[in-house]
Amino acid sequence: MPSEFDLIRRYFTRPARHTDLAVGDDAALFRVAPGMQLAVTTDTLTVGTHFFHDASPRDLGWKTLAVNLSDLAAMGASPRWATLALILPAADEGWIAAFSEGFFDCAGRYGVELVGGDTTRGPLAMTVTLFGEVPAGQAITRAGGQPGDDLWISGWPGLAALGLMHLQNRVQLADAGQALAALHRPVPRVEAGEALRGIARAMLDISDGLAGDLAHLCECSKLGAMLDAGALPLAPLIAAGADESLARHALLVGGDDYELLFSAPPEARDVLAALALKLDLPFTRIGQLTGEAGSILLADGQGASPRPLDARGYDHFAPHA
Amino acid sequence: MPSEFDLIRRYFTRPARHTDLAVGDDAALFRVAPGMQLAVTTDTLTVGTHFFHDASPRDLGWKTLAVNLSDLAAMGASPRWATLALILPAADEGWIAAFSEGFFDCAGRYGVELVGGDTTRGPLAMTVTLFGEVPAGQAITRAGGQPGDDLWISGWPGLAALGLMHLQNRVQLADAGQALAALHRPVPRVEAGEALRGIARAMLDISDGLAGDLAHLCECSKLGAMLDAGALPLAPLIAAGADESLARHALLVGGDDYELLFSAPPEARDVLAALALKLDLPFTRIGQLTGEAGSILLADGQGASPRPLDARGYDHFAPHA
Repeated sequence: MPSEFDLIRRYFTRPARHTDLAVGDDAALFRVAPGMQLAVTTDTLTVGTHFFHDASPRDLGWKTLAVNLSDLAAMGASPRWATLALILPAADEGWIAAFSEGFFDCAGRYGVELVGGDTTRGPLAMTVTLFGEVPAGQAITRAGGQPGDDLWISGWPGLAALGLMHLQNRVQLADAGQALAALHRPVPRVEAGEALRGIARAMLDISDGLAGDLAHLCECSKLGAMLDAGALPLAPLIAAGADESLARHALLVGGDDYELLFSAPPEARDVLAALALKLDLPFTRIGQLTGEAGSILLADGQGASPRPLDARGYDHFAPHA
Repeated sequence: MPSEFDLIRRYFTRPARHTDLAVGDDAALFRVAPGMQLAVTTDTLTVGTHFFHDASPRDLGWKTLAVNLSDLAAMGASPRWATLALILPAADEGWIAAFSEGFFDCAGRYGVELVGGDTTRGPLAMTVTLFGEVPAGQAITRAGGQPGDDLWISGWPGLAALGLMHLQNRVQLADAGQALAALHRPVPRVEAGEALRGIARAMLDISDGLAGDLAHLCECSKLGAMLDAGALPLAPLIAAGADESLARHALLVGGDDYELLFSAPPEARDVLAALALKLDLPFTRIGQLTGEAGSILLADGQGASPRPLDARGYDHFAPHA
């Protein structure tokens, strides 16, 4: 059986151009460009909680980096370097080869260099720590929202949740392709995040579900929100085969989406429309931030009183559907 | 049951003075000082492989950071920031509270700020990614050794291995206290690593066992080594209750030690003696680097021919004693 050292060398050593010293010593060495802040995030995927035992290693390699890229995108940071800590039940070379292919597909696509890692034995889990750069003072936090800001989401939130329900036989989708792709190979909104510097005032990614993550944004910005049910982008979910109720549920509390939720002043609408065209990525205006801290309401657009939105997002320690 | 978010907030949020934005947003933000390279390392501890199911959470909290500090020390870097990815079987508040105490004991001792993390459900494992600073160009890699350099080790390698054997009832130590402390609460040689900048030419930590890690140093420096069996610091191991054969085995292939192995020119002997006094940490000269790449020999000091040293260090995927 090849040793840990052999496997690491064979599958995880790639030329690193922006790193002074990468995999192979006690620590990696690199330089942050002058005037830049370092943005750092870490996320773990574990078998049974985040993916099934028979998940494709290639998809997992992609996703374990993509979910971290999504966090950096949500700060408006540009990804640069990553470390990878793999817990593997055995030194299965085929699995490792496929996983590294998916990982480096994603790393190459977004200009990330793998600078270090660790491989240990145990039930399958992978932790990526990802480092990006952002011009000092320009990161987009969760705390910068202003009352009256528009609320926007990128892309097609809810698709990944539909994909999961389809896999679990809890729903039969007429066309599961897009939903499964969103689940297995999420596309982190890196270019959008970078482009939103100077435009978005508060931002996060909605990996835990729109309702829960909107609550986080409101809490950090000390504001409330009013969502317009009629503005929610349900069309792609309905096209996949969900009815309207399921589509709304998937979008609001589904999770695992890796889209961006951000606030921006109403004056930015034209700029955002142009940016969406340029990025070929829809931005949908779904409501506003309000001055009523903690009040998150959903207006049905039919004249009924707005009702409080159940803000229970995905929580790894709470039972969830 | 408290949620993931509650637990993270309660036990892992501490004031961060050298961080622009710490735990609580999508990513942490911090600045690397001008003229500094960032040094980054990551290490995972998993239940069953690195510790027993009933291990003290307080000790684990200390050790999970300490083993990473040891890697930065081995570069001569100064530790600054860390992220912590915890995989927990359940949201056991008592366990988390004790773990965080041990973690922050160690973080406080070495000036490390926790800037981010992730908590997921699964079989117990913890991954720390640790960031340090080192003046650009001054890091001590594994590759800088020169033929004729003295080889030195810090402290008391082998004690942790004896402690593990004692716990496994494979040996009965007369005095297991120091050995168990070395196993459970290893002291990373951070100050020594920093002080060795400009003195040591090649360095690593011997977490995988002296023999195996010496082989790594020789491979990276493209050199060989001649160890002097009579110079190995066996006394503390014999004092703990090991016979000479066991002491030598524990020291050479034991692992889990977190001492520094480094090379330095013979002219540095006086400086190193003074430094050891100042740090109150023994440096033991155990041999020399040689120009014969790949040849790692052990001389017994009794006139017999030097014999090749079995370089099998600890390998997580190889069977080991």
